[in-house]
Amino acid sequence: MKQIKIFDTTLRDGSQGAGIAFSVEDKLKIASALDTFGISFIEGGWPGANPKDEEFFKLAKNKFKNSKLVAFSSTRKPNTKIQDDNQIKKLIASGTKVATIFGKSWDLHVQVALKTTLKENLKMIFDTISYLKSKKFEIIYDAEHFFDGYIHNKIYTLQTIKSAIDAGADYVCLCETNGGVLPSYIEKIVTETIKEFSNVKFGIHAHNDCDCAVANSIIAVLSGCQLVQGTINGIGERCGNANLCSIIPSLQLKGKYHCVPVKNLKKLTNLSKYVDEIANLTPIDSMPYVGRNAFAHKAGVHVSAIKKDSNTYEHINPKHVGNKRNILVSDLSGKSNIVSKADELAMDLEKEEDLKGIINIIKERENNGYQYENADGSFYILTKKLEKTYKNFFILKNYRVSVEKNKDGDFISQATVKLDVNGKEEYTVAEGGGPVDALDKCLRKALIKFYPEIQSVILTDFKVRVINSNANTAAKVRVLIESKDKKSSWGTIGVSDNIIDACWQALSDSIEYKLLKK
Amino acid sequence: MKQIKIFDTTLRDGSQGAGIAFSVEDKLKIASALDTFGISFIEGGWPGANPKDEEFFKLAKNKFKNSKLVAFSSTRKPNTKIQDDNQIKKLIASGTKVATIFGKSWDLHVQVALKTTLKENLKMIFDTISYLKSKKFEIIYDAEHFFDGYIHNKIYTLQTIKSAIDAGADYVCLCETNGGVLPSYIEKIVTETIKEFSNVKFGIHAHNDCDCAVANSIIAVLSGCQLVQGTINGIGERCGNANLCSIIPSLQLKGKYHCVPVKNLKKLTNLSKYVDEIANLTPIDSMPYVGRNAFAHKAGVHVSAIKKDSNTYEHINPKHVGNKRNILVSDLSGKSNIVSKADELAMDLEKEEDLKGIINIIKERENNGYQYENADGSFYILTKKLEKTYKNFFILKNYRVSVEKNKDGDFISQATVKLDVNGKEEYTVAEGGGPVDALDKCLRKALIKFYPEIQSVILTDFKVRVINSNANTAAKVRVLIESKDKKSSWGTIGVSDNIIDACWQALSDSIEYKLLKK
Repeated sequence: MKQIKIFDTTLRDGSQGAGIAFSVEDKLKIASALDTFGISFIEGGWPGANPKDEEFFKLAKNKFKNSKLVAFSSTRKPNTKIQDDNQIKKLIASGTKVATIFGKSWDLHVQVALKTTLKENLKMIFDTISYLKSKKFEIIYDAEHFFDGYIHNKIYTLQTIKSAIDAGADYVCLCETNGGVLPSYIEKIVTETIKEFSNVKFGIHAHNDCDCAVANSIIAVLSGCQLVQGTINGIGERCGNANLCSIIPSLQLKGKYHCVPVKNLKKLTNLSKYVDEIANLTPIDSMPYVGRNAFAHKAGVHVSAIKKDSNTYEHINPKHVGNKRNILVSDLSGKSNIVSKADELAMDLEKEEDLKGIINIIKERENNGYQYENADGSFYILTKKLEKTYKNFFILKNYRVSVEKNKDGDFISQATVKLDVNGKEEYTVAEGGGPVDALDKCLRKALIKFYPEIQSVILTDFKVRVINSNANTAAKVRVLIESKDKKSSWGTIGVSDNIIDACWQALSDSIEYKLLKK
Repeated sequence: MKQIKIFDTTLRDGSQGAGIAFSVEDKLKIASALDTFGISFIEGGWPGANPKDEEFFKLAKNKFKNSKLVAFSSTRKPNTKIQDDNQIKKLIASGTKVATIFGKSWDLHVQVALKTTLKENLKMIFDTISYLKSKKFEIIYDAEHFFDGYIHNKIYTLQTIKSAIDAGADYVCLCETNGGVLPSYIEKIVTETIKEFSNVKFGIHAHNDCDCAVANSIIAVLSGCQLVQGTINGIGERCGNANLCSIIPSLQLKGKYHCVPVKNLKKLTNLSKYVDEIANLTPIDSMPYVGRNAFAHKAGVHVSAIKKDSNTYEHINPKHVGNKRNILVSDLSGKSNIVSKADELAMDLEKEEDLKGIINIIKERENNGYQYENADGSFYILTKKLEKTYKNFFILKNYRVSVEKNKDGDFISQATVKLDVNGKEEYTVAEGGGPVDALDKCLRKALIKFYPEIQSVILTDFKVRVINSNANTAAKVRVLIESKDKKSSWGTIGVSDNIIDACWQALSDSIEYKLLKK
């Protein structure tokens, strides 16, 4: 097993992603989770450029058990003395023992962006690194735009690397900054470059603008790189950085490399969710290894084969990365999907006649626009209601919803709901931000004294889709609602040619599921 | 320039993606867009397995100008006669001239999933293809689990390929069905396999379970494959199929391959959005090439470098794929779009101050969730209302909408609308199939005597999307309505945290646009 150092830059390069704004507290939380997970290097920020990052380093230094904390900075300014460079002073003041120094590899950038000479750039690299080495720093040199530079002016680009190595850099990280280089070039250029130099370790830093960041990182490792820079969930500017949640399991489970302690790999899915939550990003369900659908199966053929041998349609055991298999129920699925779903929901569906009944109902409902893949809650209620002993928690007698808008543009959204709850009539009225919100409030108001546990139910997601959309406003509408309580989450569905009623169905199923699963 | 055939399977393999349920109408729309874009092959579905797909082929056959329509099916059942195979009968009945036949390459699947002998599987492949070749079909043979098969039992896997070629397959498509094979293996195995056979063309079909589907597809092309199977936006089961929106521009702009007509590449971003819209998927902003953030730059060093030379931080010119640079802080970023949109609508927007006013309003509205890409009608009204001479055709005084449901499940949806039309008050009431239908009827009833031309307006499409969906039922809702009359069609938009009001805005804009363009 060859050791690969994982270098996380979620807190620095990742924070360049659109819509991402970590507080110091957010950063401390994420860094602590990365440390627990066993990441080798955590790049915390750029103390010379961002006061928030200085604060972070003050609080974070000497705090981690498994990870080295890294501060980021650039080479000194052109034609100045390194001792006078403010950014470098702040880097030293940050109190870290490891630093990433980025410098220019591409002559275009030296001349157009830095507006200095090619020779001065080489001195800037050398001065900065040798100065920090004299201060006992471990140095990772980030060769920005290395691949573009190599393609346009190989000789100069290699000179910049030589400057960094001569100055004592511990790692040279080859950066594919613009994300536009295809895998075949990565392999060729990494191999050629590593051949040129000894006494240094190489790393890779890839961006996803060609959808190849993960592949490029893996290929660079196979070509000799010993360090991989990336971010959790691939967050980062434009199309994102290389996704460590894909790279780590691929290298460790398939490539026979060692990246993090073996027992920690099971925490990967949770780590991914945790970072999305702190960054306030909606998780991408299709994300490899860690996504909700990464091991989801819909086709009946696939599901029946998996039951015989999971290798037939699963490239790894989802447990290895802390994820789980997810069998979807849809019109493409057969009996085996329904049985597996019932197992998952701990339902007893062994009788052949029950099964047939359910399959027929599901098919009929799907013809009418229902879709149970993301609606476990409604599926559960549907099957439970087939049992002769089923007792309703509440029965709708009527509801009424109204929305009024006056000429100043002000609204009133009001709902009334009349329910029969265990033989007692409950009649409630409420106003809300919109008609659905008003209905939700009415329903809760009517039920809370009978079932106080519904207080913990929170609606977390709400989707509306028009089906047969060509049939104009009289078309059918499908509403999906995601709910959660302290323990779990569930989806419910409603379909109607009346949008309000589709919402009502999904809402009332959500509450009914909560009561039913007790 | 080497020609690469692009084979789209959005409608077949893509529809296996979680949460995706295309209607026949959705499929026809997507297929038509793919044809216009210049995709070589469009796989429409599996007529033997799905009645909806039979319907699709009935309506789609002989409809396309640039694309060949392909039907999917499997090899015949074990130990049966090919002439008696129901799936193959339905395939022939579908009326297509091109078929994908998938067969088993991996001995594990033959024995565990199919439960037949290795020898019978070879015969199944041979019989099915040779029978269909005798019916003059062009055949793409999908070698399911080819790479896993090759790794576990190379000799047998190559025998399956030989059977397909001996039977006359035109293409052999090597399928990485489970998505778990890393790029280095793809290169090795494709190269070795192509060496073994002549007289056939090879293709690649990759899945994204290791985050490498795009890289694997590109590597397979560089290794000699001449056909690439994938889906728009990479939709598909689990982590999705190889994303054609990444593969096509990478091959065509960087690899010097020819995939689609050069002028069509500019339509790629729109195609991506269109498919997301029909599939009702929230677009992934970070998607390479076509995502909203694919060319987004935060203020600072990057922006100033880009202004000097766009190559500094952009791997391609975004225009090549119909996307645009998105400089988040610049007031000028939207100008060229506004100008071109105004040109498109034959508007006169030459004054610099008009332009600035419009850009500011559009920016503010986009911040609030509006989106004018598919709402030409609302855009036109918005800009016209900035003219001092603008006169409203009608002014809303108030509306009221109510929905009632009784215990038998019957509805009444009623609306009232009070308008000021040229100084006269019009107060109407109507019932409809749902609240939006009732509002639409009220509006027309109030206006028809003043503007009889609105009679020709038909609402053709209606879409609802929840934005900020994490904020529960109080989240904002975006409604898009498509309308047409005898001459043209237009889109209008409404955004509100009240779903009824979002519908009202889009409805009233639709009628106002009709009156305005007279």
